[in-house]
Amino acid sequence: MSITSTALVLRGPREIVLEERPCDDPGPGEVIVAPQVVGICGSDLHLYREGRIGDSILERPLVLGHEAAARVAAVGAGVTELKEGDRVIVEPGLACDRCAWCRSGRYNLCPHVRFMGVPPTDGLMASRVRVPARWVHHLPDELSDAEGAMIEPLAVGLQAAHEAGVAPGQTVVVLGAGPIGLMILQAARIRGAGPLIAIDLADRPLEMARRLGADFTVNPREASPVDLVQEITGGTGADIVIEAVGAAATIRQAFDLVRRGGVITLVGIASEPTIPLSTNRIVRGGLQVRSSFRYAHQHPIALRLAAARRVDLLAPITHRFAAAQAPEGFQFVDQHKDTVIKGILTFADGREGG
Amino acid sequence: MSITSTALVLRGPREIVLEERPCDDPGPGEVIVAPQVVGICGSDLHLYREGRIGDSILERPLVLGHEAAARVAAVGAGVTELKEGDRVIVEPGLACDRCAWCRSGRYNLCPHVRFMGVPPTDGLMASRVRVPARWVHHLPDELSDAEGAMIEPLAVGLQAAHEAGVAPGQTVVVLGAGPIGLMILQAARIRGAGPLIAIDLADRPLEMARRLGADFTVNPREASPVDLVQEITGGTGADIVIEAVGAAATIRQAFDLVRRGGVITLVGIASEPTIPLSTNRIVRGGLQVRSSFRYAHQHPIALRLAAARRVDLLAPITHRFAAAQAPEGFQFVDQHKDTVIKGILTFADGREGG
Amino acid sequence: MSITSTALVLRGPREIVLEERPCDDPGPGEVIVAPQVVGICGSDLHLYREGRIGDSILERPLVLGHEAAARVAAVGAGVTELKEGDRVIVEPGLACDRCAWCRSGRYNLCPHVRFMGVPPTDGLMASRVRVPARWVHHLPDELSDAEGAMIEPLAVGLQAAHEAGVAPGQTVVVLGAGPIGLMILQAARIRGAGPLIAIDLADRPLEMARRLGADFTVNPREASPVDLVQEITGGTGADIVIEAVGAAATIRQAFDLVRRGGVITLVGIASEPTIPLSTNRIVRGGLQVRSSFRYAHQHPIALRLAAARRVDLLAPITHRFAAAQAPEGFQFVDQHKDTVIKGILTFADGREGG
Amino acid sequence: MSITSTALVLRGPREIVLEERPCDDPGPGEVIVAPQVVGICGSDLHLYREGRIGDSILERPLVLGHEAAARVAAVGAGVTELKEGDRVIVEPGLACDRCAWCRSGRYNLCPHVRFMGVPPTDGLMASRVRVPARWVHHLPDELSDAEGAMIEPLAVGLQAAHEAGVAPGQTVVVLGAGPIGLMILQAARIRGAGPLIAIDLADRPLEMARRLGADFTVNPREASPVDLVQEITGGTGADIVIEAVGAAATIRQAFDLVRRGGVITLVGIASEPTIPLSTNRIVRGGLQVRSSFRYAHQHPIALRLAAARRVDLLAPITHRFAAAQAPEGFQFVDQHKDTVIKGILTFADGREGG
Repeated sequence: MSITSTALVLRGPREIVLEERPCDDPGPGEVIVAPQVVGICGSDLHLYREGRIGDSILERPLVLGHEAAARVAAVGAGVTELKEGDRVIVEPGLACDRCAWCRSGRYNLCPHVRFMGVPPTDGLMASRVRVPARWVHHLPDELSDAEGAMIEPLAVGLQAAHEAGVAPGQTVVVLGAGPIGLMILQAARIRGAGPLIAIDLADRPLEMARRLGADFTVNPREASPVDLVQEITGGTGADIVIEAVGAAATIRQAFDLVRRGGVITLVGIASEPTIPLSTNRIVRGGLQVRSSFRYAHQHPIALRLAAARRVDLLAPITHRFAAAQAPEGFQFVDQHKDTVIKGILTFADGREGG
Repeated sequence: MSITSTALVLRGPREIVLEERPCDDPGPGEVIVAPQVVGICGSDLHLYREGRIGDSILERPLVLGHEAAARVAAVGAGVTELKEGDRVIVEPGLACDRCAWCRSGRYNLCPHVRFMGVPPTDGLMASRVRVPARWVHHLPDELSDAEGAMIEPLAVGLQAAHEAGVAPGQTVVVLGAGPIGLMILQAARIRGAGPLIAIDLADRPLEMARRLGADFTVNPREASPVDLVQEITGGTGADIVIEAVGAAATIRQAFDLVRRGGVITLVGIASEPTIPLSTNRIVRGGLQVRSSFRYAHQHPIALRLAAARRVDLLAPITHRFAAAQAPEGFQFVDQHKDTVIKGILTFADGREGG
Repeated sequence: MSITSTALVLRGPREIVLEERPCDDPGPGEVIVAPQVVGICGSDLHLYREGRIGDSILERPLVLGHEAAARVAAVGAGVTELKEGDRVIVEPGLACDRCAWCRSGRYNLCPHVRFMGVPPTDGLMASRVRVPARWVHHLPDELSDAEGAMIEPLAVGLQAAHEAGVAPGQTVVVLGAGPIGLMILQAARIRGAGPLIAIDLADRPLEMARRLGADFTVNPREASPVDLVQEITGGTGADIVIEAVGAAATIRQAFDLVRRGGVITLVGIASEPTIPLSTNRIVRGGLQVRSSFRYAHQHPIALRLAAARRVDLLAPITHRFAAAQAPEGFQFVDQHKDTVIKGILTFADGREGG
Repeated sequence: MSITSTALVLRGPREIVLEERPCDDPGPGEVIVAPQVVGICGSDLHLYREGRIGDSILERPLVLGHEAAARVAAVGAGVTELKEGDRVIVEPGLACDRCAWCRSGRYNLCPHVRFMGVPPTDGLMASRVRVPARWVHHLPDELSDAEGAMIEPLAVGLQAAHEAGVAPGQTVVVLGAGPIGLMILQAARIRGAGPLIAIDLADRPLEMARRLGADFTVNPREASPVDLVQEITGGTGADIVIEAVGAAATIRQAFDLVRRGGVITLVGIASEPTIPLSTNRIVRGGLQVRSSFRYAHQHPIALRLAAARRVDLLAPITHRFAAAQAPEGFQFVDQHKDTVIKGILTFADGREGG
């Protein structure tokens, strides 16, 4: 027996439709969730535009979405910590819990992970979705559904600041002030960093960065980020540079911004397969180039920090679309990169907050 | 007043002579040392061949050498821990002791360091050299002068294994089995790593690597390092890869050898200004690319481990030259890369050991 | 040649006087500072009451004080980064800069340190004090002298949170809400911790703790801290407990408050020579008992965070005394433990701020 | 359906018998193992003597044993990595794999763990035992069954050296040279530590410690450990002290042996509920008191190091008993503390090695 779910299905590049799909009953340890608000992520747009992301290729129609606040609609056998009606968020990386990475606590690197909304695993932009209860977290009353949908990007930001080892009083540069860059910025601030410098080619994100705690912002079209950072640091360079764009130019620039002995952390996925880098600068500069991929153990922390109002999750949301207009929403967001910072889809009875 | 010193002076590419030079009396906190054995390092040869190394350019005649066992010949005012006749080694990186890097314990990154034997600072291939007592370490009776001269490369190896975070039971690949690679290998073994895999294009170094503890060796001309490591690790890849060559091919190969979530540590100085690398492999693989530059606080540890016979410092020494034949020695080493692993210069009364 | 300085001198338990003392000209690398505001610390009061603190015994009259904002009054030879009139703070632990601890960056553990205001080293409660320029930091314009005097206790708090490894979203308990406890609390909050729980036997400090960011406070005379923490953490216990009292009861209680695998960090100096502790609880609970002693490298961070208004340094200051009334001030603070949180002494022309 | 197993059952203090017990068929994910060699651990003896250990009380007859090399006798559904006849060892701490500790990689702290051979969970001293396949590791051909039985104590030693953060060239003191102390000693040596100092009240273990790598040994009945360590370290103290006795005297002595800023790691379970310790020594000495409880992720490392002959697992085995004489064996070991270092029980067809 099963119910039906209205799902937002990507059939091919820029070919996206609402579709009725069956949703099976929850098995043991599973729940059915009814998403209320689902964020449109850069990787959703990437898939929308190109039908692929990295090595993951759209080979059959796929339900998009991995940033969701939801309500529990049904619970399977053995699920005791969730009940129908609970307000929740879903952690979309369904790791195997058995490999060496999972067992050592680094489940973001699980080679067997099924990541919702990335081929071939269907995502959360649907009215009903079956998920393992193990990856569902309670959404505190203090937080709206829109905020709940932003917990996933905040988790990305927290992981990046954690991997970078951000500490109080450090000078941190964030390259890119899109939704992920803004979350990294706030995560760095939460860890006591400062001064914080945000760099972006567009002014609207920089304005938002200042609102969310950047002490300095710079648009490389108008001024030199390297000069600014040299000035701020008395010629030393930044303690930490976090790259959240994925462009060859920003990745290379990270090496010009960081101080001797500093840490560069890569978050952005590059479109170019290789980028020429100076390994001698790494060796002679005593640098570390780290990476931050998705997150592990960050959702409960993100929820706690959000509920305590240590972070502003609503400010980056510039556009909202009803689920019924989701296809048009994707089209709009795709065509208005300069004005949209973050778009979200709101389902039926979502408590949006804000 | 001053005495004279017979010094090995590099005047230009491949133009090297023995020269009498004045050696000033030791000032306060200084000592005069009489080097007994000085190793010929790859960077000495690089300078010899090209008259430059990295950004350091030979602009005036330079005394080479930074790997020395010596005797104390005279002590300046205020020097209490050393006396005439003491057997010592010299740590050649004269850091400033005042900058942020020095004061936080990372003196290998001191921007004000004067590194002996690298332009514009004269080195240790001379019969008498004035050095600050602060950088002179006692050489234990258990160790010969030849072993003393190898403490500096061992310190490089220990730093690399430290920066890489080598731990017991880890699979560690060392790319390059020259003198530095062999020290890294031994340092990794000292930290309990295993299996250890050494990779080199020449067979003699690989033979030496096996003798010094490599569990597996591979010459890429004969077999695929990637296949070997995949087989050893059951398809997972190495926990740690340490690059001690500096070639584009080996640096790129490091990324094919390391496991998801593993650590690459760069030690080799590359001749190419940039090397195309896949940043996506760093991000999606959860990798860290670290570096190891020179050493900080490693000489006392190196001396302790050597005195306890935890390491074999003499095995890599394949050629010895009397100081009087130093120019011919450089020429020989330069022309016999395939047979020479490590050459040393022995001065007057050196106790060579072995 | 020398000028005179009006100094607050402790001659014996509760015997404190203002005295004219000569102040020598600054030697090379030294400066003369004119303190403007000097905080009265718990350790000053301890010395005042008992004529000793720990192993440090008052054997001759001593100038107290180690928390000072000052102006530079004269500079010695070779001092280039400071000039007359500069607003500064003084880091009072004059470490040797040469021992293994100093050279590895842990100068707070220097066995040769001369700590100003602790026997036998005179302190900063004087109109003129000669200090090494190396330990003098610029006070930013944004900060008042009163705030400057609080940088030292903030550095203690930052070190404690650093040693404890406080991270975002962690439940942190601070035992003791006196001036140091309040700084630890703020430091933990700066690192993103929460919920934060403050425990104290007096209500005024707890009120202050709530104002400075404690999410929960508890007075053990009124409710059980263990019950509260169990409730907040769902029975797990706190991730980190920082002890800033030094009483046997609170030290023992730390073990009842911390979770399995958690970290206890001891800051408070105990009056009892030994305290019975359950080592089995440490072993079976997988605990770490760390310590935080003074600070290393924290003053620049403290100044930066204070200037960025990430911390409130003025709130804890409940009482101010002019230097001329310093003896009465000490008496007052000594006799009004319940109402005084922090008292400061203001010299001549201090810019108090607030 | 079930087969029978001959089990060594503890019925009460010093009341131990061989008993036939049913052994159920393996369920899904389970295997039946036939232990070949099982070590007699200090905790087995503690239970034997007192009928309790820590909070774990013998409330019903219990099969002892948690150090076992075995053969796989049958496999349950879904077990693919093991087959009948495989030589294996069993990791005896059956952690839940679901709690926060398990999921962060610290499964040794799992509050839901069932530890085999500790009440109320039956152990491995039996001819047939049902265990989850997840906790069974392959025993390499290079290792005998007797060595296999010693992998568990080696894992304890490796965990202790890991928790203590032992690094090359560090001075490490191990208090206690019983089977666990000897494994810690070897683990410290594997990580490059030295000099290594072993302390014990009996001479036979000290002799064994020297054989296994201790550079110095001292019996406190004959000489002062503190004097020895002061002499070895030039008055500084040991970098790391690992306590593997659990006596008040040795725990207190750890604080006299460690250097300023050093690390004490507690492994021994104390018989006294509390021990008076100087917390001021912790604070003023900048000490860390860590703990090491059982192990996490150490068995594969232990197997690898043992197979590579980096450790001597047979030397500590001084006595062997056939399973049929197990009750007499326990009695003998209990009564000959001075001559027995480690006793093992050999079942049927064990390949003992050595």
